[in-house]
Amino acid sequence: MPAHSTVRIQLAERSYDILIGHDLLDQSDIFKDLPKASSVLVVTNTTVAPLYAAKVQALLRNQYQKVDVLSLPDGEVFKTWETLQLIFDDLLQKSADRKTLLVALGGGVIGDMTGFAAACYMRGIPFVQVPTTLLSQVDSSVGGKTGINHPLGKNMVGAFYQPLKVICDSSTLNTLPAKELSAGLAEVIKYGPIADLPFLSWLEANIDLLIQKDPVALSYAIEKSCEIKAYVVGQDEKESGLRAILNFGHTFGHAIEAGMGYGQWLHGEAVGAGMVMAAHLSKELGFIDQNYVNRLVHLIEKAGLPIVGPVLDAQDNAGRYLELMRSDKKSEAGEIRFVLISGKGTAFMLPAPDDIVRKVIDRCCQSSQ
Amino acid sequence: MPAHSTVRIQLAERSYDILIGHDLLDQSDIFKDLPKASSVLVVTNTTVAPLYAAKVQALLRNQYQKVDVLSLPDGEVFKTWETLQLIFDDLLQKSADRKTLLVALGGGVIGDMTGFAAACYMRGIPFVQVPTTLLSQVDSSVGGKTGINHPLGKNMVGAFYQPLKVICDSSTLNTLPAKELSAGLAEVIKYGPIADLPFLSWLEANIDLLIQKDPVALSYAIEKSCEIKAYVVGQDEKESGLRAILNFGHTFGHAIEAGMGYGQWLHGEAVGAGMVMAAHLSKELGFIDQNYVNRLVHLIEKAGLPIVGPVLDAQDNAGRYLELMRSDKKSEAGEIRFVLISGKGTAFMLPAPDDIVRKVIDRCCQSSQ
Repeated sequence: MPAHSTVRIQLAERSYDILIGHDLLDQSDIFKDLPKASSVLVVTNTTVAPLYAAKVQALLRNQYQKVDVLSLPDGEVFKTWETLQLIFDDLLQKSADRKTLLVALGGGVIGDMTGFAAACYMRGIPFVQVPTTLLSQVDSSVGGKTGINHPLGKNMVGAFYQPLKVICDSSTLNTLPAKELSAGLAEVIKYGPIADLPFLSWLEANIDLLIQKDPVALSYAIEKSCEIKAYVVGQDEKESGLRAILNFGHTFGHAIEAGMGYGQWLHGEAVGAGMVMAAHLSKELGFIDQNYVNRLVHLIEKAGLPIVGPVLDAQDNAGRYLELMRSDKKSEAGEIRFVLISGKGTAFMLPAPDDIVRKVIDRCCQSSQ
Repeated sequence: MPAHSTVRIQLAERSYDILIGHDLLDQSDIFKDLPKASSVLVVTNTTVAPLYAAKVQALLRNQYQKVDVLSLPDGEVFKTWETLQLIFDDLLQKSADRKTLLVALGGGVIGDMTGFAAACYMRGIPFVQVPTTLLSQVDSSVGGKTGINHPLGKNMVGAFYQPLKVICDSSTLNTLPAKELSAGLAEVIKYGPIADLPFLSWLEANIDLLIQKDPVALSYAIEKSCEIKAYVVGQDEKESGLRAILNFGHTFGHAIEAGMGYGQWLHGEAVGAGMVMAAHLSKELGFIDQNYVNRLVHLIEKAGLPIVGPVLDAQDNAGRYLELMRSDKKSEAGEIRFVLISGKGTAFMLPAPDDIVRKVIDRCCQSSQ
């Protein structure tokens, strides 16, 4: 039997386990210990379904009589109310009740939409996540964020809703394109500088193994990421304060995504270049030195991520970045609060003078330093 | 200054107050003690807006700089995703942030949709309820149920989400049609037999005053109803057990609504006839005597509610009722669980033999007894 680790997410009556390891979907009893249900609906997409849907359905049939699969179109562009409605339609057509179990099989889009469907169907039914991308394994597994996009903004409609269990099988990453693996590594890398310097050193020593999809290294990276995120989220479930440090690199990153048009850069790619900018900003404000910036930039580059930001406006590039960051949903009354790092494995939120932010953007969008 | 009562809803960190009294919307500081907000959006409908929107907007402007009003089309038929989307559109177009306050001004449909919008916008923003119908004052004020209808079922998509405060001004009932006042009284009356016999006696003594919209009697009835519902919900926030007794009369009532087509009978009217059936069923099963049934039927009739159920199928009326009740979302694996009363001011859930249920339906749909 393949080994697995368990990360326990402590949230009072909504606590749950994340099981992490390789070949977990080859364990016949991996879905044991879930509550009784009249029926189960596996929600997946057209890319993941041919790879894992039959396997997951067979595993669930060891525990449940009625297990159906709903395959949705693949991609962020389908993270909409219209697609969500397909889940509700299917549940109602199948007479799903309040004890029907939803299983999200896929990446972040499937996880967010299925989780939101579970949060809202009859005001809440149970759900389990089986994330099949590195990004969703290290990011969406913890925190309970679910939702859909609105034509006027990403993730604008959603809920905090916790799964009953998360099963992270690192073997599913074997079918993940290299570009998406790198994008997932961006969220892994951030946990080092914001919370755990030994993990940063481990990442530097093991980045080649991770890129080669070594199952043991990947499982360890997922486990550490979930542990750190769980620690942070456990202290701040509804994102009122501390949790914001998880957005290291995201303030700049969101500007890149919004400025390029969503879908041009992968979220993790934007976060990669965004972390480079946030590191430079931390240095400019005197919190870290140039050596530490260089360490981070080198690691981000070795992870296969961009370290130079795109030029969003030929006339006033920094101005465009500032404008986009000011309209981000995390800014309040137009004040941008950046996640900065201390160099000692901690992070904090601060506003920064526009001229220094401009200097950082100018440097990070024009050279590779 | 007009007097008001306060019912405190105890729900740990989501506790809140319901203020109840007449002429509350003439108190200039009625919205004090709410959190700071960058902006406020009052959501109402085209019927209520001309009556109270300007007044509420002016009151809110005593506390907030930016107060807008969004007026939605009126009616259950608009309790849909499409209408909900109008709230999200408006919030995003106005750059509402996580601290924007939503105020629901209207009946149950406005309260449910605005509450659900508040639950989902950016995964949760604060909201206040100003219910303007008796039904919403005694029912939606407590319990945190929010949501919309799906083409395949009522209230199928929603969330449990608590307001910051509820302001029940019984004077707003002066503009309420008599038919809707009666419908609201159905939900008031139910609290007597399920939880509070002295309140049942009070209702019998004061039903004429209530029908005449006496502000003091109405305020007392609202206060008692909220107190009783709060007690029940406080022990069972997510509707796993005890809370189900609040559905006294609703199992039969939902069959009437579904069988007639939603909107033909008001919800409260269906609950009125449904309570008559539930009382008869309680008697047939030996829990109460005929005198007690007669008392309830008399009170329901004096409240202006129907006491005879509609014939839903000329061939097999009872069979049609049973079929509809079996497909209700509250039944599990096809077993109907009825809310029955003891005659001692308590209620409980039980299944019942089909032949006895048929007998009750046959009697209650064909005579006025």
